[in-house]
Amino acid sequence: MDLPSKILQEAVDQLSTLPGVGKRSALRYALHLVRSDEHEVRDLSEALLRLKTDLRRCRYCHNLSDTEVCPVCSSEKRQKGIVCVVENVQDVMAIENTQQYRGLYHVLGGVISPIDGIGPQDLEIASLLHRIQTADPAPVEEVILALPTTMEGDTTNFYINRQLQPLGVRVTTLARGVAVGDSLEYADEITLGRSIVGRIPFNQ
Amino acid sequence: MDLPSKILQEAVDQLSTLPGVGKRSALRYALHLVRSDEHEVRDLSEALLRLKTDLRRCRYCHNLSDTEVCPVCSSEKRQKGIVCVVENVQDVMAIENTQQYRGLYHVLGGVISPIDGIGPQDLEIASLLHRIQTADPAPVEEVILALPTTMEGDTTNFYINRQLQPLGVRVTTLARGVAVGDSLEYADEITLGRSIVGRIPFNQ
Repeated sequence: MDLPSKILQEAVDQLSTLPGVGKRSALRYALHLVRSDEHEVRDLSEALLRLKTDLRRCRYCHNLSDTEVCPVCSSEKRQKGIVCVVENVQDVMAIENTQQYRGLYHVLGGVISPIDGIGPQDLEIASLLHRIQTADPAPVEEVILALPTTMEGDTTNFYINRQLQPLGVRVTTLARGVAVGDSLEYADEITLGRSIVGRIPFNQ
Repeated sequence: MDLPSKILQEAVDQLSTLPGVGKRSALRYALHLVRSDEHEVRDLSEALLRLKTDLRRCRYCHNLSDTEVCPVCSSEKRQKGIVCVVENVQDVMAIENTQQYRGLYHVLGGVISPIDGIGPQDLEIASLLHRIQTADPAPVEEVILALPTTMEGDTTNFYINRQLQPLGVRVTTLARGVAVGDSLEYADEITLGRSIVGRIPFNQ
């Protein structure tokens, strides 16, 4: 599509770098902004830039944070002896939304994936070990591995577990099984198999 | 969803003001930007702002333009005696993409819609009449009304046609009919009816 203006073209090109945004949606967004008030576009423009200039990572858990230590790590109400290891920021949000977890997190920033050239040194694994060794911000008793159940996730679990063994912390992982509300008939066999093998006492 | 950071929250809120963008997509865009390089985010941020600060409207046709007179109005190759009246910028792009039209445009910026409080004075109708009366940038022989076939579009056509009568220009409108490649069986009856009433010589 030929656009009547280079400025519009540039905005469309920039917007279509966003994930899942094609040229047509980008044009729709751009024309919406053309019709908006200047202060609204300025607010958007500045909010996006602040993502790079002002947003940072918590020095302990490496989750996104406005401050040096994130609200979770600095909260008095959290159990600081439990650390849940997750792949990314979205995983922290998903677990926080359950309101079932009161421990801390450790965001790896990815999983080991040789095919993408991502090794242990590209992830926040050394900082996890350091955090346990120095008991900073608190002594760690349990590490929960909550990485995805993919080959990369399993590899990363295995790697971290081996590094953790000499440190004397308990290592656990998420229970896998048939989802609440799902019928057995439609569960995939691997999940159903794990539900049976990992069965728990009825009165727990 | 509770986000871990006010800066992230603000970016998500801003992004979800874009048309058709929900909180989930906005979060995906924001996290993509967090992972991008700062110069990329700066380029996006500045391109959006330039939509308000640098982009303008052509003084003749009111299409978006980088310059005071847009490339179409200033082109030596266009037939300046024909003006096609359209609702918005996207309509100009759609007609330009056909590569069948060599005249000029006039972008109204909307259609008359009393229910939305949009009257003739909110649209570029006076400037259309002025353009014809003053023959600036060129004398106009024909005005093509290419507004949408909605009640509002028809009302606007009717209004403009009445204003144009005293000026002695030829007023035409787009041919409506069954689309090329469509079978008659599945055409809606209004469109098929217009195709029959507006039939043309076979050898044209």
